[in-house]
Amino acid sequence: MLVGAIEAGGTKFVCAVGNESGEVLDKVTFPTSDPKETLQHVYDFFSSYNISSLGVGSFGPVDLDTTSSTYGMILNTPKLRWKEFQLLEHLTKHFSIPVHLDTDVNAAALGEYMYGAGKDVSSCLYITVGTGIGAGFVNNGKTYKGKSHPEMGHILVQKHVDDDFQGVCPSHGACLEGLASGPAIEKRYGQKGHLLSNRIDVWEIEASYLAQAIMNYSLILSPQRVIIGGGVMKQERLYQLIRKAFTNLMNNYIDVGDIEQFIASPKLKDEQGVKGAIALAIEKGR
Amino acid sequence: MLVGAIEAGGTKFVCAVGNESGEVLDKVTFPTSDPKETLQHVYDFFSSYNISSLGVGSFGPVDLDTTSSTYGMILNTPKLRWKEFQLLEHLTKHFSIPVHLDTDVNAAALGEYMYGAGKDVSSCLYITVGTGIGAGFVNNGKTYKGKSHPEMGHILVQKHVDDDFQGVCPSHGACLEGLASGPAIEKRYGQKGHLLSNRIDVWEIEASYLAQAIMNYSLILSPQRVIIGGGVMKQERLYQLIRKAFTNLMNNYIDVGDIEQFIASPKLKDEQGVKGAIALAIEKGR
Ligand SMILES: Nc1ncnc2c1ncn2[C@@H]1O[C@H](COP(=O)(O)OP(=O)(O)O)[C@@H](O)[C@H]1O
Ligand SMILES: Nc1ncnc2c1ncn2[C@@H]1O[C@H](COP(=O)(O)OP(=O)(O)O)[C@@H](O)[C@H]1O
Ligand SMILES: [Zn+2]
Ligand SMILES: [Zn+2]
Repeated sequence: MLVGAIEAGGTKFVCAVGNESGEVLDKVTFPTSDPKETLQHVYDFFSSYNISSLGVGSFGPVDLDTTSSTYGMILNTPKLRWKEFQLLEHLTKHFSIPVHLDTDVNAAALGEYMYGAGKDVSSCLYITVGTGIGAGFVNNGKTYKGKSHPEMGHILVQKHVDDDFQGVCPSHGACLEGLASGPAIEKRYGQKGHLLSNRIDVWEIEASYLAQAIMNYSLILSPQRVIIGGGVMKQERLYQLIRKAFTNLMNNYIDVGDIEQFIASPKLKDEQGVKGAIALAIEKGR
Repeated sequence: MLVGAIEAGGTKFVCAVGNESGEVLDKVTFPTSDPKETLQHVYDFFSSYNISSLGVGSFGPVDLDTTSSTYGMILNTPKLRWKEFQLLEHLTKHFSIPVHLDTDVNAAALGEYMYGAGKDVSSCLYITVGTGIGAGFVNNGKTYKGKSHPEMGHILVQKHVDDDFQGVCPSHGACLEGLASGPAIEKRYGQKGHLLSNRIDVWEIEASYLAQAIMNYSLILSPQRVIIGGGVMKQERLYQLIRKAFTNLMNNYIDVGDIEQFIASPKLKDEQGVKGAIALAIEKGR
């Protein structure tokens, strides 16, 4: 059995053909342009394969409420050409096979859960810290959706005492994404993160925000593992700084087991999204 | 069919006999003393009824991990006589009927969801703001547990600009419970909350913390409704202050619908816990 997978990102699309073991057999990446042109690339890629179902991890906000009249639609995105585009409907019409839609970060979480750093646990949270901050939660093999879908990157945390930066979130200013995303670091220090590797103060502050966020997520969702990825986490030292800050903040309030295991790095490099989309296709397509 | 319900609190126990419609047919309340004496009261009350299953909402921390060797045990509580007491085992042995255990706040959440302010939605969060702060989440009829169980009252939020209080949480100082529980109000102002009704500044700060918490819970869990109860919420004006602060903070980032419906008061007065325990008994007992 072959299945199709789409990681539909705001800047690039990744399409892949996979098998029941979650292996990627063929893959293509292209920049996201307008919906028509982008979907034409998608259709071209899959045209030589006989796929039996399709999994899609999409940028958002995308309506995942199956009872909603706009289910499967990209809602109020700043990418104006995609605003109110009926992604699910277009794909379903073209392929005439089951199409299983989720958010990009839920798909990435599912990929790590099925085939990566969450393979040995029954629930995990996957956080991506890049241009934005997002998180997806998988519990007993299912991605968590809620009423619409969670937007965990925008939670509020305490300001660091040495940080008087006002934040970059257009909606909330100093929410987590406003304080700790890649663009927040760039704006606060006037330089991109990869040029700040030697500034330990930068990563102490960054770690304190991410540790607070992980504390809040853990107190609310109680996951068995937290996996953190995304561009900013290329600063490898962040993992230890976050573990240390988390341990201090949590003060043994809940037992998370071995902290090295609890706060982990991803195992699928840049393939968690597309592998998660394969998992969506397999699981639901059967 | 008759079922039994126990709301096992740290200061008082409530036992009830209910029917399949969730109605309370008989009820008794007594102070919590040591485990032996307390359970004797429980056994005496139920001895004249032929109950087919039992639901229990317990104070904690209680181990709800069915795979754990201490499943059903009250863990590391400051109430020393209850520490490591095997509540579930004792009840199961005595009654020889199915016993369904959950946390006190999950039971309260389930009570409101089934019979109260959450009757018309498919998911709701119930928050209690009293001596401590806790929250329980019900999604599609099931209480949410996670790896151990959530401890949502201890999340971190931003300090209010006019608040230099250091908080009362023994573990975290200025976590939500440390800043916004009844004892936090009493310590900050040197007076119990019910004597501060006229101090609008008190309730503005209180509302700002609770609104932040509801923002975080909503971004993570995406519930359809949030119900707030507990002693501190007897300050009725808090509901409007919280709704206003939440609306400002969230800044339309996610659509929660009508805010009056989204942030609601409980409908079961002080019976949500015991009614939730009845629901636990019914649902799982069948
Ligand atoms: N080595 C690095 N150190 C710190 N920040 C980095 C590093 N590499 C990339 N970033 C930051 O990560 C962000 C991009 O994140 P990424 O996950 O790659 O993309 P996206 O979130 O857009 O999918 C940018 O803000 C960039 O400055
Ligand atoms: N009218 C009121 N206004 C403000 N705070 C109140 C009021 N009534 C009770 N409280 C506070 O609520 C807390 C008790 O909460 P409650 O939910 O009744 O009990 P518990 O949390 O112990 O089950 C106390 O700290 C008390 O000071
Ligand atoms: Zn934000
Ligand atoms: Zn605390």
